[in-house]
Amino acid sequence: MDKLILDGMGGDNAPAAIVEGAVKALKDDKNLYLIITGRENEIKAELAKYKYDTSRIEIVDCPDVIGMNDSPTEAVRNKQSSLMAAYWMLKKEDDICGLVSAGSTGAIIAGGQLILGRIRGIKRPALCPAIPNVNNGVTLLCDCGANAECKPVMLCQFAVLASAYAQAGFNKTNPKVGLLNNGTEEHKGDPLRQETYKYLSEMQGINFIGNVEGRDINYGDVDVVVADGFAGNVALKSIEGCAKMILATMKKQFTSSPAALIGAMFMHGAIKRMKKGLDFDKYGGALLLGLKKVVVKSHGSSKPASIANSIKNALSIYRNGLIPKVEDMLAKVDLDNLIPVNNE
Amino acid sequence: MDKLILDGMGGDNAPAAIVEGAVKALKDDKNLYLIITGRENEIKAELAKYKYDTSRIEIVDCPDVIGMNDSPTEAVRNKQSSLMAAYWMLKKEDDICGLVSAGSTGAIIAGGQLILGRIRGIKRPALCPAIPNVNNGVTLLCDCGANAECKPVMLCQFAVLASAYAQAGFNKTNPKVGLLNNGTEEHKGDPLRQETYKYLSEMQGINFIGNVEGRDINYGDVDVVVADGFAGNVALKSIEGCAKMILATMKKQFTSSPAALIGAMFMHGAIKRMKKGLDFDKYGGALLLGLKKVVVKSHGSSKPASIANSIKNALSIYRNGLIPKVEDMLAKVDLDNLIPVNNE
Repeated sequence: MDKLILDGMGGDNAPAAIVEGAVKALKDDKNLYLIITGRENEIKAELAKYKYDTSRIEIVDCPDVIGMNDSPTEAVRNKQSSLMAAYWMLKKEDDICGLVSAGSTGAIIAGGQLILGRIRGIKRPALCPAIPNVNNGVTLLCDCGANAECKPVMLCQFAVLASAYAQAGFNKTNPKVGLLNNGTEEHKGDPLRQETYKYLSEMQGINFIGNVEGRDINYGDVDVVVADGFAGNVALKSIEGCAKMILATMKKQFTSSPAALIGAMFMHGAIKRMKKGLDFDKYGGALLLGLKKVVVKSHGSSKPASIANSIKNALSIYRNGLIPKVEDMLAKVDLDNLIPVNNE
Repeated sequence: MDKLILDGMGGDNAPAAIVEGAVKALKDDKNLYLIITGRENEIKAELAKYKYDTSRIEIVDCPDVIGMNDSPTEAVRNKQSSLMAAYWMLKKEDDICGLVSAGSTGAIIAGGQLILGRIRGIKRPALCPAIPNVNNGVTLLCDCGANAECKPVMLCQFAVLASAYAQAGFNKTNPKVGLLNNGTEEHKGDPLRQETYKYLSEMQGINFIGNVEGRDINYGDVDVVVADGFAGNVALKSIEGCAKMILATMKKQFTSSPAALIGAMFMHGAIKRMKKGLDFDKYGGALLLGLKKVVVKSHGSSKPASIANSIKNALSIYRNGLIPKVEDMLAKVDLDNLIPVNNE
């Protein structure tokens, strides 16, 4: 039995969507055991709506909920909140393998750093979503918001973290790593990019293919895109906005005339498949990489299917040994030797 | 008669697409006079394919062409190239109002800075494309690649430049200006963003609405998005890649079954209108703002219609007084007083 802990109160649709997603995940995986933290009476009321295996679910009553506007450091101090209580259990109990939360990103990062703790040697955790690409696969974008300011050593570690994720999460054997830059030539970018380029080129065990541009995230041939959290966040959200605009434009045009409406009926299946191919939630949230255990941040607006996917994702990468893989790769890379301390 | 100068040899499809676009632009605007720089015999051979008003076109023979791989500073030294010869004429001849080129971005920026020169007080020119948004309008993204590293004063000037462009190019009376950041809260981002936020809030004549995120470029309610050239470039190219992926996925799905094919026939008009709404070239290239005259960079892969649009765009913003508008706004803003010299 693999034990996961689920923040029952995180996200816009909590606890209803969280509980429904949890029940779905329990049905899909017979070796999953779930601990849900949150307001026991609310969660029980939701659970009462479904049939499920009661021996594989457990509720830990937490009276408090972190609001989306609470400051992350304040949030960490409240041990009674569903998220921080989950982090404390995750830290203390060896047999819990990971955490899923749709709560505030800032609080999830703060709790990860301050309660659970980082893998030995890792400077900062990083957020890493899997973004659909034109090859019917995904591109991992790391970091996309945890660290607005970065140093070269952090970007090099993001390459390690996301390469391990590409292996453990998506079965890539030698994932291609690109550095997000404003052009593909070696000399491109600011000093941060130029230095990082040099170190990434020399790193053992990293399949560095050079600089990549924003367009390569969706339309290139790269598995891992390394970015500081500022640029990664800009890229991720620009892509989200573009996809939303195009789908809105499509909807408007496809209902704009009787002919288009008839056409849309014929194309129902194709449109559905297309939307599925573009579903950013399909891969189950973003990983918060660099921590001692698997932590998955599900989108704040997650519906039950996204929660179930996040749970499935967390379980699968735990089983595929994400954390030992990161430790192995870090040892091989030997960043301390590669990067002078004053350039870290 | 308004005189424009056109780089006849810039871009992947030169001179054929440039000449065809020029002829189209001459037909569309009876008050346009065009000077085309480049290899005279090649340009004449292309011109011979069309009927046009020979009294409104002139060729200046330039034997050299700047390659996409030539370094910009090398390129500037070659006065015989179609682009740099055009810049020298633009600088020297008062009655030429602007330049259009589909050549290398680096060379266009270098020539603009080193030959034509900046508007008095402007620290650096900035590239500013118009990006389609969900409201059937455009969002101006400034800078998107000319300056990988920026200081607050530069970002403040980009706000002035793009606000003037929104007025002269798109008839916006009080354009909304947002600062591209990794979140909307006031304290978000690195010190560059935090300082710039403060100055933008205090600037006279700028309608600053606060921080915006990547998604607001396509899907928000903002006219001008201010960014350093690195983040702006990442955003622009992420959007390009996303749009390409979605159109490719659509094409694949819409030809995936007989039903979808029939549907696509019915939807032909709607699909065409949708693609037109998403056409990034519709607004005629990116402006290189901050120079003494109007300079438009057309996409390297520009087809004749894009070249014609770039010419139309250059002409229209010249006629609407872009340069005097920038000078007026700069004088009102009085950045020298607002920003301490050591924070520039």
